[in-house]
Amino acid sequence: MAGPEPITPGRLLSALQWRYATQRFDPSRPIPAAAWSAILESLRLAPSGFGLQPWRIVSVESPALRRALSAASWNQPQVLEAPRLLVLCRRDRVESLDVERLIALARGQRAISDEEAARWRAGLASFVESGAATDQWAARQVYLALGVLVAAAAVLGVDACPLEGIDPPAYDRELGLAGTGYQTVVAVALGYRAAGDPAATADKLRFPEAEVFTRA
Amino acid sequence: MAGPEPITPGRLLSALQWRYATQRFDPSRPIPAAAWSAILESLRLAPSGFGLQPWRIVSVESPALRRALSAASWNQPQVLEAPRLLVLCRRDRVESLDVERLIALARGQRAISDEEAARWRAGLASFVESGAATDQWAARQVYLALGVLVAAAAVLGVDACPLEGIDPPAYDRELGLAGTGYQTVVAVALGYRAAGDPAATADKLRFPEAEVFTRA
Repeated sequence: MAGPEPITPGRLLSALQWRYATQRFDPSRPIPAAAWSAILESLRLAPSGFGLQPWRIVSVESPALRRALSAASWNQPQVLEAPRLLVLCRRDRVESLDVERLIALARGQRAISDEEAARWRAGLASFVESGAATDQWAARQVYLALGVLVAAAAVLGVDACPLEGIDPPAYDRELGLAGTGYQTVVAVALGYRAAGDPAATADKLRFPEAEVFTRA
Repeated sequence: MAGPEPITPGRLLSALQWRYATQRFDPSRPIPAAAWSAILESLRLAPSGFGLQPWRIVSVESPALRRALSAASWNQPQVLEAPRLLVLCRRDRVESLDVERLIALARGQRAISDEEAARWRAGLASFVESGAATDQWAARQVYLALGVLVAAAAVLGVDACPLEGIDPPAYDRELGLAGTGYQTVVAVALGYRAAGDPAATADKLRFPEAEVFTRA
């Protein structure tokens, strides 16, 4: 199948070199609506193990909430200054309910026989029964989606900064996540770098290829 | 700073809609060298918490090793058919050694005063001392890099399939990772979809926006 016109490797690398963990955003420069929609959609379209999509994404728009989250983020300036702030949450524990939800989604799009649904349940049974281990698994899926977003934002020319230095239980409280079945994993600030961000001109620190890649 | 020319939101979305978890690759169609270099570089340039890059990437080229890994991957056809197979490994436990390695990297690129290095060590001390918890953290960083790769491959028009259904300890044995300080997390097969891959024409199953996104 002929796909969409690919971009050149050089253009991709320029975008990935251009991006960095933006420290200071320009609060006065919003992300255009079409780019913002595409960034959200990059999360929704991200792949996940078994296709379970064990995540929810909260877009934080309330200024009061931003202030409360800033206090739960070591006062990192991005939480208040970035035009957009997303909180990426994971399913706290994958259950058979999640498998049924996925099967129902599939049934809404195409015919799924009872036998096919039964095979689906059986295929996921041992995973779902692993219970507690699914929490870390779900967190990894959220990070995969975050990686898709990081690359998507870069090629769109939008700055992004993943924020791991947050207090997830405090985020959960501020966002009222108790009882929802979802928990905060990581946040990400998005917008455009401020003119004076000192981090923008720092060299990117990456180990050389020989220390990252091996062949076998 | 004016960045590289961004791609349009529509073009990004076309690429993300086009991609899918490729089941059958065309073994006879290699990835051009420039695209392959860019895909590897997308991993090397991926962001990571504290900039620690707690990963190593193994490119599996030996046919004998491919066969051994196939047996450790439920015989999923991608492991033998995809022109490229990467194994993404995490640092098994982050130590003060990793912090020193990062400081040495920084010192190779710019002047770092002893005071600055000391602040760096102090800032990471409590994280490093958390010991065992760093293994799951490192796995999440690997997934973030995997997400960057998924998006990078898509915009380059290269097919990719993350492979979670593998036996990591068996991979570690086959790849000789014991004692290296790195452990298998996930694999990814890359190349181009075979003409007959039934998965290529299946509808993408994604929960609707209203079930993924909330505003607060």
